[in-house]
Amino acid sequence: MHFPIIALVGRYQDSGLHAPLRALATLLSEAGRQVLIEAETARHTGVSEYPAADFAEIGQRADLAIVMGGDGTMLGAARHLAPFDVPVVGINHGRLGFITDIPVHDANAALTDLLEGRYDTEERMLLSATVWRGQEQMFAATALNDVVLNRAGRGGMIEVRVEVNDAFMYTQRADGLIVATPTGSTAYALSAAGPILHPSVSAMLLVPVAPQTLSNRPIVIPADSVLNMTLSSMSRVELGASVHFDMQTWSDLTSGDRIVVRRAPHTIRFLHPAGYSFFSTLRRKLDWNRLPQSGNEGE
Amino acid sequence: MHFPIIALVGRYQDSGLHAPLRALATLLSEAGRQVLIEAETARHTGVSEYPAADFAEIGQRADLAIVMGGDGTMLGAARHLAPFDVPVVGINHGRLGFITDIPVHDANAALTDLLEGRYDTEERMLLSATVWRGQEQMFAATALNDVVLNRAGRGGMIEVRVEVNDAFMYTQRADGLIVATPTGSTAYALSAAGPILHPSVSAMLLVPVAPQTLSNRPIVIPADSVLNMTLSSMSRVELGASVHFDMQTWSDLTSGDRIVVRRAPHTIRFLHPAGYSFFSTLRRKLDWNRLPQSGNEGE
Amino acid sequence: MHFPIIALVGRYQDSGLHAPLRALATLLSEAGRQVLIEAETARHTGVSEYPAADFAEIGQRADLAIVMGGDGTMLGAARHLAPFDVPVVGINHGRLGFITDIPVHDANAALTDLLEGRYDTEERMLLSATVWRGQEQMFAATALNDVVLNRAGRGGMIEVRVEVNDAFMYTQRADGLIVATPTGSTAYALSAAGPILHPSVSAMLLVPVAPQTLSNRPIVIPADSVLNMTLSSMSRVELGASVHFDMQTWSDLTSGDRIVVRRAPHTIRFLHPAGYSFFSTLRRKLDWNRLPQSGNEGE
Amino acid sequence: MHFPIIALVGRYQDSGLHAPLRALATLLSEAGRQVLIEAETARHTGVSEYPAADFAEIGQRADLAIVMGGDGTMLGAARHLAPFDVPVVGINHGRLGFITDIPVHDANAALTDLLEGRYDTEERMLLSATVWRGQEQMFAATALNDVVLNRAGRGGMIEVRVEVNDAFMYTQRADGLIVATPTGSTAYALSAAGPILHPSVSAMLLVPVAPQTLSNRPIVIPADSVLNMTLSSMSRVELGASVHFDMQTWSDLTSGDRIVVRRAPHTIRFLHPAGYSFFSTLRRKLDWNRLPQSGNEGE
Repeated sequence: MHFPIIALVGRYQDSGLHAPLRALATLLSEAGRQVLIEAETARHTGVSEYPAADFAEIGQRADLAIVMGGDGTMLGAARHLAPFDVPVVGINHGRLGFITDIPVHDANAALTDLLEGRYDTEERMLLSATVWRGQEQMFAATALNDVVLNRAGRGGMIEVRVEVNDAFMYTQRADGLIVATPTGSTAYALSAAGPILHPSVSAMLLVPVAPQTLSNRPIVIPADSVLNMTLSSMSRVELGASVHFDMQTWSDLTSGDRIVVRRAPHTIRFLHPAGYSFFSTLRRKLDWNRLPQSGNEGE
Repeated sequence: MHFPIIALVGRYQDSGLHAPLRALATLLSEAGRQVLIEAETARHTGVSEYPAADFAEIGQRADLAIVMGGDGTMLGAARHLAPFDVPVVGINHGRLGFITDIPVHDANAALTDLLEGRYDTEERMLLSATVWRGQEQMFAATALNDVVLNRAGRGGMIEVRVEVNDAFMYTQRADGLIVATPTGSTAYALSAAGPILHPSVSAMLLVPVAPQTLSNRPIVIPADSVLNMTLSSMSRVELGASVHFDMQTWSDLTSGDRIVVRRAPHTIRFLHPAGYSFFSTLRRKLDWNRLPQSGNEGE
Repeated sequence: MHFPIIALVGRYQDSGLHAPLRALATLLSEAGRQVLIEAETARHTGVSEYPAADFAEIGQRADLAIVMGGDGTMLGAARHLAPFDVPVVGINHGRLGFITDIPVHDANAALTDLLEGRYDTEERMLLSATVWRGQEQMFAATALNDVVLNRAGRGGMIEVRVEVNDAFMYTQRADGLIVATPTGSTAYALSAAGPILHPSVSAMLLVPVAPQTLSNRPIVIPADSVLNMTLSSMSRVELGASVHFDMQTWSDLTSGDRIVVRRAPHTIRFLHPAGYSFFSTLRRKLDWNRLPQSGNEGE
Repeated sequence: MHFPIIALVGRYQDSGLHAPLRALATLLSEAGRQVLIEAETARHTGVSEYPAADFAEIGQRADLAIVMGGDGTMLGAARHLAPFDVPVVGINHGRLGFITDIPVHDANAALTDLLEGRYDTEERMLLSATVWRGQEQMFAATALNDVVLNRAGRGGMIEVRVEVNDAFMYTQRADGLIVATPTGSTAYALSAAGPILHPSVSAMLLVPVAPQTLSNRPIVIPADSVLNMTLSSMSRVELGASVHFDMQTWSDLTSGDRIVVRRAPHTIRFLHPAGYSFFSTLRRKLDWNRLPQSGNEGE
């Protein structure tokens, strides 16, 4: 039997979640699976018919986690479960849904396929980041999408010196600097005019946001690179800067602080219904390369 | 009575044109207008029930020209009629239709409005361009969309020195260089990453295609600027270069040739059904600023 | 005699300003001009040998204002003096200097030219903006560079509905939205991938910062447009948004607030040493279109 | 002894090559190396004191090839030598020199380092491409930079259907479509607004040139992808299309032709003087991320 123990994780801020979550749990139970509900999800949705479990317990016991919500929920679950090698599946329930690629109305069919072993597997890298002040480590986090250095407020700009494997790359003056995984290349980095990286490319992507220089261009570097980003001392940086790891924020950044980013030791496995196409998702969800109906070019 | 004499111009390569063209002519006749058919259109479509007239005669006699076809047909008619101050209306019959903004199935209602005086007027500038070899003028043409300098073949690149009102602007090395009117800003210039110019902005736009320099950025200059573009001598230019005025081509360009571009002495008036919105056309036809359904940004 | 009364305005945060400011005042005195020192400048630099005057008095009495500092100083002086039709000249003393185009070491020669009537004049438009909450006007300001709507913090995004002359243009989801004058097109808007507008183009420029949609493109609209920008209600906007007028900030923006932007009733005149070239400034200061020394394209 | 047999390859169109080439050969001889001169190079430069050898012989006998010329010479040598696993070093003698990274005036020092074993090694992938008409293979070539599909002339546009590993990716309407290696990412693809790929990223890059759609974005896919690109039937394609493999051209492309691109079976090894930095080359040669001296952002 595929996936005998399955955990459900939901977007608990979502007041309408309990019904589809319960339906999903019923479907799995009826298919003979043992169902765990992630503890916070259980508490917020009131779905208490199944054993609740925190991420650590899910990590140890579950064979699969099904995430119901938006991409934010998926990002969080992925970060928690990556160390345990529990694969995740995303069912979109909410406005956003690029990595939660199964629409809720297709969930039954998709899960039936999954339970019968018809699925594709995709390994996704995460980033591991630490913030340093001198020799002291101030913060540490992992990110599935991106690590983003950001100025606070309009007045300022950040100035960051970036080294790759101890070689100087550039000094960037910009609103922000994004270090993205291939997964994150279709998130914030895309808004900042970055390229799309197929999930199985083994690389990181650096994209500045509103860079001061005209001659910038995003750069793709090998996944095993170690990035050192040092916030320079600039008059306006007193206005503040912050660093974000997916949606986790460390906002006390000051001049001289150093952010070290490298590939996380674990990856996360995404399962997709058989026949999943990354390109199709790009076209449908992002309108990527959507052909205009017209142009006033002569016929 | 609005527009007592109306000329019809059609895209004569289009074998299916005679039926809608005839229907249109009937509608206008029944509304008491005198109908002229542009001579080439008449010949190709076989619509011979109405007097045929060439563009010069249309220019002198007609109060309005209705163009049925694609944007190419419209561009041609506009260039011919601009000197005569005959306004044009575009009905889209074909794949493309950004400036031929009335869909054929809305034509009856739209024309009824027009004939009763419910329309908006838009003045569009044209470009006047000449090609010079030393003191000899080799070619002259007008363009409603753009003047495009272009390399021939992949191997080469053009190098053009550009002066604006006798002040040096830049030397551009690129696949091509586009000088566009606001009308042309939504045509080829848009593909080359140019900005959109509202039709009533009084300006020209310069956009290089695949420029060698990283630090390029399109530039918008006043409509009354005089542009001097000189093709430099470069090894590869022997491979050939050409210059295009909308769809008219002069392909004998050699090193040292000079293209002078300025605003044409006449403008062309576009009539639109009352309530026409340029922004709405941008959104509908170009999917401009179409919001994606998703992104994997956290919710 | 050209410019009998000349006011000096300086960047008073700049502790090294008093010496070049005093030298400048001496030069002007010796050339028979009456010198006024802007009151704050006088107070901060300690240059007290000349009558101090606030901007209102300068506006009424002076024939010319010379601004010594960076572009920020120039922006401030221009906003103050525009209503009085006092022309300004900028001498760069500081890191930045795009609109303060005379380097301090060229100041003597440049000013001699000016005093003898050898200069070029450039009229620059300003924006006038108001912030509305329902029927109540919360804030008003003018801007020479830009009006910028901005999210606070990384987590959120702003959603702004934009109308131009009461016609719906688009709803923009982005980090920010910049409305720039031609002057501002070479400032923040340029970082956000906007085009360059020559100062004498009569237009405004809208450029989103990190827009969510892939199909965005900056748009240039006529200078006499009236822009209505309404902040939408979005979950994350509680995180805050702000609006900036050059460097003046109103940071209390909430959902439903409306910002109205139109051309300001006054312009500001910039004087330049004869022979000034905007294009040359672009090339020198922004490295615009700087040709790379190489590429690995085959020779 | 490092590299006992060394072949010299030069840009034979370059009439000034014989002197530095001879100097180089002398240096190598004096260092006890056996020198071969590539046959065409020998013939064109008249350097006949050393045995001439064609690429096949160089491939079998030489331990190293030193290429003197521009990037085009290097591309050609690399394609010839990749199957033989002979490493190459590039000395720039000409206008271009991104991958020929040693300036001619540094050649002596750099080669001394090399001969003493102080160098860095970089493995670069190539593309292998075939052109198909139905079941017939029309052309085959390898490319170190890129495979480029291109329209001929301004009038037209190509329409290409692209599949990756048999999954539909998109249909691209554009002036051209570039498939680049990481090496090629800093060549033509960069002009077409592509990102930079570090040479050790194992990936291909697809960048359209002047795409019709507003919502395009370059995409990076794994190096082991198989690309199928089919030229669609479009009215204007009769005007012609061509495909380029670095600088080799096949210009007889017609509707329905298929180009298949995959990673070539061999890589080429580039040797660099110890301490070589790819990032430094980007900054120096392409002015990548060059900070402007100014902006009129407030200070």
